[in-house]
Amino acid sequence: MARIPVAILGATGAVGQRFIQLLADHPWFEIAALAASERSAGQRYAEAVRWVIPGDPPPAVAEMTIRPLKPDLPAKIVFSALPSEIARQVEPAFARAGYAVCSNASAYRQEPYVPLLIPEVNADHVTMIPRQRAERGWSGLIVTSPNCTTTGVVLPLKPLDDAFGLRRVFAVSMQAISGAGYPGVASLDILGNIVPYIGGEEEKIESETRLLLGRMENGKRIAADIAISAQANRVPVLDGHTICLSVGFEKTPSVEEAVAVLADFRGPEVVRKLPSAPEHPILVRPEPDRPQPRRDRDAMGGMAITVGRVRPCPLLDLRLVTVSHNTLRGAASGAIMNAELLVAAGYVE
Amino acid sequence: MARIPVAILGATGAVGQRFIQLLADHPWFEIAALAASERSAGQRYAEAVRWVIPGDPPPAVAEMTIRPLKPDLPAKIVFSALPSEIARQVEPAFARAGYAVCSNASAYRQEPYVPLLIPEVNADHVTMIPRQRAERGWSGLIVTSPNCTTTGVVLPLKPLDDAFGLRRVFAVSMQAISGAGYPGVASLDILGNIVPYIGGEEEKIESETRLLLGRMENGKRIAADIAISAQANRVPVLDGHTICLSVGFEKTPSVEEAVAVLADFRGPEVVRKLPSAPEHPILVRPEPDRPQPRRDRDAMGGMAITVGRVRPCPLLDLRLVTVSHNTLRGAASGAIMNAELLVAAGYVE
Amino acid sequence: MARIPVAILGATGAVGQRFIQLLADHPWFEIAALAASERSAGQRYAEAVRWVIPGDPPPAVAEMTIRPLKPDLPAKIVFSALPSEIARQVEPAFARAGYAVCSNASAYRQEPYVPLLIPEVNADHVTMIPRQRAERGWSGLIVTSPNCTTTGVVLPLKPLDDAFGLRRVFAVSMQAISGAGYPGVASLDILGNIVPYIGGEEEKIESETRLLLGRMENGKRIAADIAISAQANRVPVLDGHTICLSVGFEKTPSVEEAVAVLADFRGPEVVRKLPSAPEHPILVRPEPDRPQPRRDRDAMGGMAITVGRVRPCPLLDLRLVTVSHNTLRGAASGAIMNAELLVAAGYVE
Amino acid sequence: MARIPVAILGATGAVGQRFIQLLADHPWFEIAALAASERSAGQRYAEAVRWVIPGDPPPAVAEMTIRPLKPDLPAKIVFSALPSEIARQVEPAFARAGYAVCSNASAYRQEPYVPLLIPEVNADHVTMIPRQRAERGWSGLIVTSPNCTTTGVVLPLKPLDDAFGLRRVFAVSMQAISGAGYPGVASLDILGNIVPYIGGEEEKIESETRLLLGRMENGKRIAADIAISAQANRVPVLDGHTICLSVGFEKTPSVEEAVAVLADFRGPEVVRKLPSAPEHPILVRPEPDRPQPRRDRDAMGGMAITVGRVRPCPLLDLRLVTVSHNTLRGAASGAIMNAELLVAAGYVE
Repeated sequence: MARIPVAILGATGAVGQRFIQLLADHPWFEIAALAASERSAGQRYAEAVRWVIPGDPPPAVAEMTIRPLKPDLPAKIVFSALPSEIARQVEPAFARAGYAVCSNASAYRQEPYVPLLIPEVNADHVTMIPRQRAERGWSGLIVTSPNCTTTGVVLPLKPLDDAFGLRRVFAVSMQAISGAGYPGVASLDILGNIVPYIGGEEEKIESETRLLLGRMENGKRIAADIAISAQANRVPVLDGHTICLSVGFEKTPSVEEAVAVLADFRGPEVVRKLPSAPEHPILVRPEPDRPQPRRDRDAMGGMAITVGRVRPCPLLDLRLVTVSHNTLRGAASGAIMNAELLVAAGYVE
Repeated sequence: MARIPVAILGATGAVGQRFIQLLADHPWFEIAALAASERSAGQRYAEAVRWVIPGDPPPAVAEMTIRPLKPDLPAKIVFSALPSEIARQVEPAFARAGYAVCSNASAYRQEPYVPLLIPEVNADHVTMIPRQRAERGWSGLIVTSPNCTTTGVVLPLKPLDDAFGLRRVFAVSMQAISGAGYPGVASLDILGNIVPYIGGEEEKIESETRLLLGRMENGKRIAADIAISAQANRVPVLDGHTICLSVGFEKTPSVEEAVAVLADFRGPEVVRKLPSAPEHPILVRPEPDRPQPRRDRDAMGGMAITVGRVRPCPLLDLRLVTVSHNTLRGAASGAIMNAELLVAAGYVE
Repeated sequence: MARIPVAILGATGAVGQRFIQLLADHPWFEIAALAASERSAGQRYAEAVRWVIPGDPPPAVAEMTIRPLKPDLPAKIVFSALPSEIARQVEPAFARAGYAVCSNASAYRQEPYVPLLIPEVNADHVTMIPRQRAERGWSGLIVTSPNCTTTGVVLPLKPLDDAFGLRRVFAVSMQAISGAGYPGVASLDILGNIVPYIGGEEEKIESETRLLLGRMENGKRIAADIAISAQANRVPVLDGHTICLSVGFEKTPSVEEAVAVLADFRGPEVVRKLPSAPEHPILVRPEPDRPQPRRDRDAMGGMAITVGRVRPCPLLDLRLVTVSHNTLRGAASGAIMNAELLVAAGYVE
Repeated sequence: MARIPVAILGATGAVGQRFIQLLADHPWFEIAALAASERSAGQRYAEAVRWVIPGDPPPAVAEMTIRPLKPDLPAKIVFSALPSEIARQVEPAFARAGYAVCSNASAYRQEPYVPLLIPEVNADHVTMIPRQRAERGWSGLIVTSPNCTTTGVVLPLKPLDDAFGLRRVFAVSMQAISGAGYPGVASLDILGNIVPYIGGEEEKIESETRLLLGRMENGKRIAADIAISAQANRVPVLDGHTICLSVGFEKTPSVEEAVAVLADFRGPEVVRKLPSAPEHPILVRPEPDRPQPRRDRDAMGGMAITVGRVRPCPLLDLRLVTVSHNTLRGAASGAIMNAELLVAAGYVE
């Protein structure tokens, strides 16, 4: 089967680089074009990029010429790693021109009829796409991936919500520096230090969680009625977001019941067969001092969320800790899995 | 006025070193003896210690000979920096022999009639001491300092409790490596990593908070009726514990009211004149990205708790972040201030 | 072809863990036994080990029972990750009993007729083995791997020595914490700090370099006549040793000549076909700011030494910087490659 | 005595902030004006600055209005913390207008008749100033401070040069991130990593060392005839540059002789009385694992260079390690001490 040609918008940034690394050997997709801002367009990729991932860009990609952000790329799917303000202009132009835009930007995450997706969590939200096309007059489409921290909150809460009815969530994140891109966080700000603030992050975690756990009703997405309070911190960790959660349910589970539900979670049938789908989207570790970002972020190729320290909470029902890979599951790999879902669900021909 | 002779038990450990550094120039106290375990006893201090604080031990102390942990030291007050299991044996022997023991160990923190003290918070708990002496038949006494993390939780909550009636607390800590002593945390465990577990810490934060905010009634301490859920993490920060709090009150304050109450807090009259008392026990910073451990831990000589990001909480009433110096206010300086309070209150002659 | 049964001595330590990780899928070798000190012997591996490598021990190994350090293991080759003082007793017992001991310990590195090996550098030193056996009356044998830092010095210098005649070497190392094992370096010593001392390291680098670059003459190893001055530092890096070198030759090469010689190096024919042999033992990077430990340590599976900043030296001839993976090429993988060489050269049947 | 009014050029940058911190309580100088680029001029200092030093700007300074970089400031001495390309334009304008410019920039360090100064090392180089004024037609003057790393090389070598005749130097630096200013080094580049390159640094160390150790002859500075090879590295350390040195002399000293000469060094009489002069410009530590940047950078208020590990070198004569505070002795404090020397020597009235 011929691979589907894809393009990467914002190919020189940190997330763009991850897209390139991950798509270099993808069984379904083939990198057909790279695009970036005026500043880089026209240059050889290897010259334009400051590669921040270990190793080097794949040789074939290194020789590609970067194109401008115009919807004339030889691709069916475009992965957007653009800054949000640019995404806001560029992504609709591509959707209008018939491309399936899988965006990692926040620009359209809150938009009506634009699915905000984690395949294992809410694959059925793709059924909003026909209405999206109709409303906007697009032949293409936009789907979005959540904020990198939201993923580590929502994926482990999904099976607990299904089983016990999620009502209240406290989330305190300790987020890796790679989440801020390059150059991102100044070393003088973070070496041996913590910055207890990431602009806009807490609001994103709170609102995106409600969207992702929302249900489809008559073709409309109804946000979940969950009270959630988030606090976001930057810590001197390279990759991997750690999140301390306290959660309250309609029906209080025992620790054993919660662990069983987490460990058994697989996601819907259609999702399990996607090339990027991990065998276990959630791994539960029994050790008292896990998960840890450096030791657990790469579980299942960076696609599993590792959960540990599941224990009762004196205030709500349960406390737990999650670690997720913020630039893989939480960004580039997540968006690629969304594209796979679009293909499997027939939205890309 | 002649200075009061004091001794340090556990003088070679990390907290013992802080005691020595801080007492070297104390206006009321004078280091008269150092004591430590068999292994070190009999050695010159400079030889026995692996000094982990910048600089060197004070010259006069460097030449002292370490004595065994026996209650025959030429001192009135002893500061205990002993491990808890040893403190459990040694501290009562000193109390029985007439010494005022100011302990940083956890051994007797939960004991009836043993004050667990933060002077600005509960100076009146020293009124338990006569009953302690009577029950135990001691001519001396024991008072204890809380766990280093508890201090950063309780001190900022005290004025809020007084004003608005504290009812519920979520606390997630990000704790510095110096809290684990030396050698303490292995670098392979913490470099570029987070360990979401510190044995016994969460229980201590929860129970000590209730004791510290408890009230005296007919000579008895009644623990406060507060629901509290703590999650403790170790982070790659040298000194300074950062704590994210969400708190609920009987009477919901506005952000402005809460900030005013925090900024105005001074502690009781008797405490304000103690040599170690900072002018402001609580500093409120207005910047969105403060407090930070490396930039705020040394505020007011490491004796002030810095508070920031006071904002509403979607679940309880308020969210805030605190930073405190774990080996100063949270350990050695805190215990020294307790000793100052004992002197001011007439429990040491 | 049946795989050769191997055992790991010191299987629970940091290097022992690397042996297990690397041998789990080795094409020639199969883990048949694990051995460790009394303290661990008799336990299930998964229970006895504190696994410090990301992920988990291979499932098959996790279930193995650890055996004592006695030469009755069902293996032909034993990999020794023992501390040197224990290796000194245990390794000869295994050699006497007929095992081929591939040691990562320093105990026998300086011994006459015991090859100190980096296959690409001095594969011919295995010809000392018959004499070793004769002198000691062993039916087995011992070969040793160099100190992890020596590897990053010697491998890049080998082709330069061959081409231009090495005479003088200045080496300043910046060594990762993993080189000290677990728990190893205390975080209080190294976070945001440098320790300019590693006991015995400088002497090892100096003497082992001369042995490794020595030549065989009439069955004897003649140490190379090279003046070398080493300074060793510990830095807050997880894995990967960085070394700044200044080198002087008999015949001064141009930078271009040196780079060509480095980039063309492949090692002897017999070595190129070993399973662990990287296609390029030395990678030369042209960027001004490379090599860097975090970005280059994993080159060619951690088996290549990355070299950069080749430039003239105002005092000697050339300056260059190398990065090598200290627990792969510099420890476990290096010892495994030595075992492969023994098999290829006919010393293990 | 009235304090001398001084101004700071480039007051908002990292070095500018250090000038402000250090001059807040200076016995001879008083901050009379702050100046910075167009972008900041006109703003209140507290608003314009992103303060990267622990704590806050001194209150009096916080309220000052930043002025443009024009030579109409109410000051006699100006401290320049400007980037070099701007310093090249601005500093001569101030010198022409009668100001004594004490520059931390590299722009004029290599200029004839512009003293490059470390007071203890070459206070006599100020005698070039009359010729500088004559040649340029300036009523003011420029003196410069060396590169932050050069200071840690030259100050400890000065007494050894005087005693034994310095001939050859190998220097490998491990430099703190604060040396790159703010935002400076990206955390993604340096967390758990080393960057073995700092643009222009090695050339500066080499050439500035020869100037600083040069002698005055008939009013001219004759650069020292020393062969020096430097390699510069960036490491994840906040403050404090560590340098490994190997040095060769005309007359080989014993370790004891070298240590005695280092420990006895005081600098010339005129310098010892300057307010910023440390009692000991060089501290020799006997421990095998010192100096360390985090533990030794603040020795004598950050003004002493700590030296350790003095030992023979197999290639040259001696090896040693130095640690110096790069933003105090190596930058702001060094420039302030130069200004003190100008006052003491009568070049500022």
